[in-house]
Amino acid sequence: MTVDLRLSDLHPALDDPALNSMSFLNEIAQRYPDAVSLAAGRPYEEFFDVAAPNRYLDTFRRHLTEDLGQSPEQARRTLFQYGRTKGIIHHLVARNLAVDEGMTVDPEAIVVTVGCQEAMVLVLRALRAGPEDVLLAVAPTYAGLTGAARLLDLPVRPVAAGTSGLDAVDLRAQLRRVRADGLRPRACYLTPDFANPSGLSVAEDSRRALLELVAEEGLLLIEDNPYGLFPAGDDRRPPTLKSLDTARQVVYLGSFAKTVLPGARIGYVVADQRVAGLDGTVGLLADQLAKIKSMVTVNTSPIAQAVVGGALLEHGCSLVAATARERAVYARNLRHLVDGLHRRFPAGSPVRWTVPAGGFFVVVTVPFPVDDALLHRSAREYGVLWTPMAHFYAGSPSVPALRLSVSAVTPADIDLGLDRLAALVADELAGRAATAELG
Amino acid sequence: MTVDLRLSDLHPALDDPALNSMSFLNEIAQRYPDAVSLAAGRPYEEFFDVAAPNRYLDTFRRHLTEDLGQSPEQARRTLFQYGRTKGIIHHLVARNLAVDEGMTVDPEAIVVTVGCQEAMVLVLRALRAGPEDVLLAVAPTYAGLTGAARLLDLPVRPVAAGTSGLDAVDLRAQLRRVRADGLRPRACYLTPDFANPSGLSVAEDSRRALLELVAEEGLLLIEDNPYGLFPAGDDRRPPTLKSLDTARQVVYLGSFAKTVLPGARIGYVVADQRVAGLDGTVGLLADQLAKIKSMVTVNTSPIAQAVVGGALLEHGCSLVAATARERAVYARNLRHLVDGLHRRFPAGSPVRWTVPAGGFFVVVTVPFPVDDALLHRSAREYGVLWTPMAHFYAGSPSVPALRLSVSAVTPADIDLGLDRLAALVADELAGRAATAELG
Repeated sequence: MTVDLRLSDLHPALDDPALNSMSFLNEIAQRYPDAVSLAAGRPYEEFFDVAAPNRYLDTFRRHLTEDLGQSPEQARRTLFQYGRTKGIIHHLVARNLAVDEGMTVDPEAIVVTVGCQEAMVLVLRALRAGPEDVLLAVAPTYAGLTGAARLLDLPVRPVAAGTSGLDAVDLRAQLRRVRADGLRPRACYLTPDFANPSGLSVAEDSRRALLELVAEEGLLLIEDNPYGLFPAGDDRRPPTLKSLDTARQVVYLGSFAKTVLPGARIGYVVADQRVAGLDGTVGLLADQLAKIKSMVTVNTSPIAQAVVGGALLEHGCSLVAATARERAVYARNLRHLVDGLHRRFPAGSPVRWTVPAGGFFVVVTVPFPVDDALLHRSAREYGVLWTPMAHFYAGSPSVPALRLSVSAVTPADIDLGLDRLAALVADELAGRAATAELG
Repeated sequence: MTVDLRLSDLHPALDDPALNSMSFLNEIAQRYPDAVSLAAGRPYEEFFDVAAPNRYLDTFRRHLTEDLGQSPEQARRTLFQYGRTKGIIHHLVARNLAVDEGMTVDPEAIVVTVGCQEAMVLVLRALRAGPEDVLLAVAPTYAGLTGAARLLDLPVRPVAAGTSGLDAVDLRAQLRRVRADGLRPRACYLTPDFANPSGLSVAEDSRRALLELVAEEGLLLIEDNPYGLFPAGDDRRPPTLKSLDTARQVVYLGSFAKTVLPGARIGYVVADQRVAGLDGTVGLLADQLAKIKSMVTVNTSPIAQAVVGGALLEHGCSLVAATARERAVYARNLRHLVDGLHRRFPAGSPVRWTVPAGGFFVVVTVPFPVDDALLHRSAREYGVLWTPMAHFYAGSPSVPALRLSVSAVTPADIDLGLDRLAALVADELAGRAATAELG
């Protein structure tokens, strides 16, 4: 067959595991549609209301005319035309952060983005001034962060998560190492609440200590918070890093994919950092991010923004209230998964797992390598899908652990999936035992 | 005021005229809301139907169940969840290209994007493998192309538009120069139909000659076609480059912003080029673009796609039929503008202008420098907005020409705007004459 281009002539990120990870996982899921999926981190969909988008659109249009005083023509223009680069629901996002997180945010410091992914791209692009710049990221790391960094030619150095979400000693050590290499650390990316994939959360006192550490080190934090509203217990949610941030050291990334609906593709970034221009004028980092956004997607679809805006308006801008049912489902599923792991791998089993305080994800550690080949076999022969943890360590072919997700399943799915996983594990352990005997 | 960051520590594109151009022009428009705007390239909005988005959503949902056989649950998932990276209306886009352009396109070669801007970003990112890669672009150039290239560290070399949209002699000369500099030309970007800002169109025989030229040179073309459906006369529309492309030399960029509505932010790219992987497997360039997209916006909002999908379905996938009223408005406005220029600048005047065969834009050349300061003065003292042509020549502070747009105005706006422009021009000419006398 005639070939027009070679992959080696395209951007090197296209050959990077981080960029191939998502397509690989999607392919597996498509190839084995009947397998039980404990892989997908998609939100629960039973409560999706088919009539909601139309209603949200109408609610937001009324808001434009009745609350914001736009004429019907202006409201139509707001929804249909090109619009404000930083978005049209920034005031509602700010209100949501005040109501749900106790955060006081200048709406002008918010850029509404095409999902949280675009927010990452804008921030990483802004911070990558040259080849000496590197990003730190708590490992294991969300593959979308690593992939975006690769695409923007920004190297990522891992920081150990430890047992509490971020190992401060390792952060200091990595900073020393980066600087010793003549490089400039621009920021450290982390998900302090129920991280993907580790499930770990940073304790409140560690959050304060982390902010002191980065103040001393002159480092920005990029706080990603897609799962914060989903604690599994009745515990008070700890404050976000951004709400403790008195010195504008935190760039905050938010997403409505898990709280309203993924199909709107609406996220945002809070970037209140003050940037001095070459002419001495001082503006917000958000305005620099908007300039980048104008060249990436021009602006976020006002129709998609209106869907999320309508949802916020219908719930008094509180997503804590709006997601009560989903939160209960995720908490129930997490308990069911952990109980199920206990039953199938009782004391004495070499299998271990995390017990997160919330979120979507549990990490299961096993005494054998877990790679894409094993996932293939799991899908084909056992009918269960999960995610090899290697996908969250850039470039590692195999890590003896896998991620299970509880977000898009029922307790019956969990039972069936765990039965199948237990069979796979038993066969792997028996196979290894047999190999050891032969050897 | 405390400063957290310096612009000089951020990505160098943030200090580039291309990225500052759009924010500058938006600022001017916001600062002088009462000025007549012959600047905005936004589509005509009088025909926007406030009820349309809801109806389009319903139409597309019915299409999913009735035509594609999805269950109501599947249809809900298609609209609400994360979805296919390459999009969910690719089959309708392919049908639209068949109906309106006579193009036969494999739907799998289409990536639906967040406006045409994201399509540019995906293509330029893929083609920039290293610092030796450069892009050619017909100048004057759409500022969004130049800005995206800057953001992706891809240098742009201008190719003269000449009088017919692309000067083939200059293209060959630029290719020689790029190669002599040890650089690799990856593609040439052009808008063959009613280009922004020149208004020029490439004649049909020149299109065929251009395809032969790039076949000889081993160069890709990036064909951007946002205005092709808006010829001002009854002339048959020439075939797109892509429809003449038998050897997969053309990457085709499309937009629904001018034909359906900007607020959906839906564009697409047709990339049927065959890419050989490192392992010898051959796939479509579209699939490589999708991998990049998964790290930029994950996927295009299915709700926004459904709005455009519904519009396509309601018009039998023909946007020629759907945009008949808009086409008539643009043609009338273009005639009105050109007639108005004739009346205000009769024979003997040093003012010249282009007479495009369609599209939104007329370029007016004047015998004095046209820069941002003059635009400021035009807005403040004369109450008329236009776009300095310098914004379309990367890095040029001043070009003696300005762009007028007819897309978002009425004939009365055009009359008023031209009266004011004529007053500005008269004062500038008088001022220059006075200075010459003094000198």
